[in-house]
Amino acid sequence: MRVSKYLLSTQKETPANAEVISHQLMLRAGLIRRNASGLYSWLPTGLKVLRKVEAIVRDEMEKAGSCEILMPIVQPADLWQESGRWEEYGPELLRINDRNNRDFVLGPTHEEVITDIVRKEVNSYKQLPLNLYQIQTKFRDEIRPRFGIMRSREFLMKDAYSFHLDQETMDATYQDMYSAYCNILTRIGLNYRPVLADSGSIGGSMSHEFHVLAQSGEDVIAYSTEGDYAANIERAEAPKPTQSRADATQEMTLIDTPNAKTIAELVAQFDIAITNTVKTLIVKGATEEKPFVALIIRGDHELNEIKAEKLELVQSPLTFASDEEIRAVIGAGPGSLGPVGLDMPVIVDNSVKVMSDFSAGANTDNKHYFGINWGRDLPEARAVDIRNVVEGEAAPEGQGTYAMARGIEVGHIFQLGTKYSEAMNANVLDVNGKAKTLLMGCYGVGVSRIVAAAIEQNHDDRGIIWPKAIAPFKVGILPMNMHKSHRVKELAEELYKTFTDTGIEVMFDDRKERPGVMFADMELVGVPHTIVIGDRNIDAGVLEYKNRQSGEKQDIPMNEVVDFIKSVAL
Amino acid sequence: MRVSKYLLSTQKETPANAEVISHQLMLRAGLIRRNASGLYSWLPTGLKVLRKVEAIVRDEMEKAGSCEILMPIVQPADLWQESGRWEEYGPELLRINDRNNRDFVLGPTHEEVITDIVRKEVNSYKQLPLNLYQIQTKFRDEIRPRFGIMRSREFLMKDAYSFHLDQETMDATYQDMYSAYCNILTRIGLNYRPVLADSGSIGGSMSHEFHVLAQSGEDVIAYSTEGDYAANIERAEAPKPTQSRADATQEMTLIDTPNAKTIAELVAQFDIAITNTVKTLIVKGATEEKPFVALIIRGDHELNEIKAEKLELVQSPLTFASDEEIRAVIGAGPGSLGPVGLDMPVIVDNSVKVMSDFSAGANTDNKHYFGINWGRDLPEARAVDIRNVVEGEAAPEGQGTYAMARGIEVGHIFQLGTKYSEAMNANVLDVNGKAKTLLMGCYGVGVSRIVAAAIEQNHDDRGIIWPKAIAPFKVGILPMNMHKSHRVKELAEELYKTFTDTGIEVMFDDRKERPGVMFADMELVGVPHTIVIGDRNIDAGVLEYKNRQSGEKQDIPMNEVVDFIKSVAL
Repeated sequence: MRVSKYLLSTQKETPANAEVISHQLMLRAGLIRRNASGLYSWLPTGLKVLRKVEAIVRDEMEKAGSCEILMPIVQPADLWQESGRWEEYGPELLRINDRNNRDFVLGPTHEEVITDIVRKEVNSYKQLPLNLYQIQTKFRDEIRPRFGIMRSREFLMKDAYSFHLDQETMDATYQDMYSAYCNILTRIGLNYRPVLADSGSIGGSMSHEFHVLAQSGEDVIAYSTEGDYAANIERAEAPKPTQSRADATQEMTLIDTPNAKTIAELVAQFDIAITNTVKTLIVKGATEEKPFVALIIRGDHELNEIKAEKLELVQSPLTFASDEEIRAVIGAGPGSLGPVGLDMPVIVDNSVKVMSDFSAGANTDNKHYFGINWGRDLPEARAVDIRNVVEGEAAPEGQGTYAMARGIEVGHIFQLGTKYSEAMNANVLDVNGKAKTLLMGCYGVGVSRIVAAAIEQNHDDRGIIWPKAIAPFKVGILPMNMHKSHRVKELAEELYKTFTDTGIEVMFDDRKERPGVMFADMELVGVPHTIVIGDRNIDAGVLEYKNRQSGEKQDIPMNEVVDFIKSVAL
Repeated sequence: MRVSKYLLSTQKETPANAEVISHQLMLRAGLIRRNASGLYSWLPTGLKVLRKVEAIVRDEMEKAGSCEILMPIVQPADLWQESGRWEEYGPELLRINDRNNRDFVLGPTHEEVITDIVRKEVNSYKQLPLNLYQIQTKFRDEIRPRFGIMRSREFLMKDAYSFHLDQETMDATYQDMYSAYCNILTRIGLNYRPVLADSGSIGGSMSHEFHVLAQSGEDVIAYSTEGDYAANIERAEAPKPTQSRADATQEMTLIDTPNAKTIAELVAQFDIAITNTVKTLIVKGATEEKPFVALIIRGDHELNEIKAEKLELVQSPLTFASDEEIRAVIGAGPGSLGPVGLDMPVIVDNSVKVMSDFSAGANTDNKHYFGINWGRDLPEARAVDIRNVVEGEAAPEGQGTYAMARGIEVGHIFQLGTKYSEAMNANVLDVNGKAKTLLMGCYGVGVSRIVAAAIEQNHDDRGIIWPKAIAPFKVGILPMNMHKSHRVKELAEELYKTFTDTGIEVMFDDRKERPGVMFADMELVGVPHTIVIGDRNIDAGVLEYKNRQSGEKQDIPMNEVVDFIKSVAL
């Protein structure tokens, strides 16, 4: 393209309100513009990258045997009522009315629509397994849209859905999609990691997320130092304690602790080990008979809310009791809680179960018990895994220890089981003519989010450094004083034509701008290879080449430039 | 693709509620499925065609120098308030609220958003002219969605917008887009016609529509038998009468016409020429002082509502007075109206101005005047062009006579002038540093509608006959008894692999179906070239080839099949 006929729209200044580097650079390099909260337009350069990501995703879906379809963005509410999500789904589901006051939603996902299509179109086991995908705009009315297109309200997603009569083909397709997702991220050139994931509100059993590793990632990934195990921290299994509980050696004592409102203060003031204390968290119960439940974790651990809300006794989504509720039920503030004498179900983390002679709040303001022992001072409690794993502890399957990384979730695959097909009555006749409920898988890629994730992983202080496969342009032509030098203009135009004819995407900066501005724009936009043309170069018979990634410059004989660029750019 | 792993979803029966052939065939051939009124999913075969149309449109836009962008579907209402269309646009504009109860619209078009982007990003004449396009889903809440995706609520559109400081570059870009549209429709292989068009509510001056000619078209095109002139009948200029008005020869007489409620009855009962009668239509006026206006056209003519509503005295959109209003104002029913003694502005068609000794209702029930003459029996009236042209009368510019055709509008280009840029304050500094309001053009292609239009123009009683450029598959492989004959299976698989590797899109019917079913599906889907493989063919060393368009069959030696298909399909 010629910059003079293009909407380049670069900005020097770092925009206000753009917290993460990808958002800043996407605005500065003229990739996107904000139209309203969480709503963005893709300018030409950004869209070129988006379309390249889309093409790679499409290609890998086709290779994996998925067939492309396109479902509407506006979906009839009755399907959501049938699946039950009309009620379940929170305000992220934008409910709208048409001119006849009928209910619709702006599709945040398409499980209902695809299940409706498949139950109508597929009747026989002969048509299965079936794998369908689309690349379509989605809308989620995020409560706090942020990070540009990383968490926008409107975004481009690839969503695939597979249908099966048996677990064998379900597993096979799941594995195919897992591989396709690895291929997509490898081809794009990103450092990523597939991790075990929680399947969340979408339902189902087996689930993996695909994370692009980046410091700014919203998710924490726990992976094993030796071996393949990796999981979202939401889902990472904490190791069961290997030691058994030590015998009690202390009497339980009630201690005045007027200045210890937190574990940290308690530990500091009384010189005890934090690993010998527990935190007591009061959450809402799942039933009216048991309105509150106490969750007990070791003082140095963090509650894992995802694990906790899966407990049968606990309300989902997890809801903490307010200070007022705690005082009304227990008679003490949140700084003085503990498991001793508590009149509600008590669930402890596995690591708490093996503690002895430990300290906890006494359920009386400004008092703690020291020397607490299970069985003696309070009943044995049910022990489960309800905490986040921590760096350095044993990873599952004997694969060394846990290490942590941050990731940006760009893909998520699920085995949904019969959640939707059962609710929506999606049956197919099997080989014996018997109606069977379909098994279903679903597989999402955040196409637009990948663009931001790629930038988070690949940039420097001058701008974006695109992975080769998704660079908006392969080569930049930077003519110096073209509007004065006929020779420069002629050579620049010639190279532009040659590259264009060869199918090499060029950014030809034909503006009347200072070289410094043109250089800065090339680097900000992240053009991988730049050729500088000036009178001095022509005199010397060599053109100056600059590599965006390495920053290295090199003189290339004029008659070798085209072959050189072909060799590095194609 | 292998049909066994594909969602073919063909139907034998013509679906109920599908009025036009393209809608019927798109359902029967498994191209689309209805999700709700005016909302459709594209199944794999339909989407393949849609993507091919999209690719041709994109390619021609790029060639025309337009840059692709992508704007959001959900648009903030404040931009529409700024342009004035928040009030003006009818209920086709779906207004929605987000979770914070802020107003948004589902974009039926993007003039406001693009003008907002350009006024922020473009500051200097150096950045102009600029031409931007997108291929994006649109939503129009049609009062009566019909004809499948031909008039659906959600649809895929290419919309381009150009910005200029002067009329010269505006005209040049308009011409480039005109040519690009011709290229698109020629490449797709459609019989089409560009026609002069009314620019309607979108505003502006110059406008052309691009129509695919088809019997089922909703629009009527009037074109000249000699020369290039063609216009939507809404816009086609009626020839000015060449004869002057003849002198009066009759006295005006009041005649009882109790059984003549219509022109046809009057003409039949009194043996007068219909060309010597006039129709009087009462419409709402534009102002309170003149609440009604009488429009007079010749008895054999039709009112052109588009022309009429542009008259300054007339309310827009054109609104006919009700029977009650007519009786209240004139004291007679609609069957007895006429221009004599009418107490409201009277506007006559040019052809009426030259009539003499003519007949009309007497504004008294069951009475008509005969022998009416202008100037003598009633004041001379203002004469304009307010009628539809008719076949056989003189076309403009001396280009023979008018002929009529029906068309499906698939493209529309406009010069908008400063309508949006003025309302939204989109200025740019010119070469002298003076702020100038931008001139704007907009250019739309109904990408999804083209698919339906192509079918309307290309089908027979067995199914769709795709133009080569947009056929979903190039070749069909139809193996007979593949599941019993190893030889057939082997050859079919070999051909499938060869075609696929050569980039020839194949529909490989590997189902256990009767040959009749497989043949019918190939023809319904419209696969242009089919190769039949049976044991008998293999014995004879020749495969049977069938051409979808001509219906011709041909035996091809087995070892020549691949080359033959390459020669016809690529």
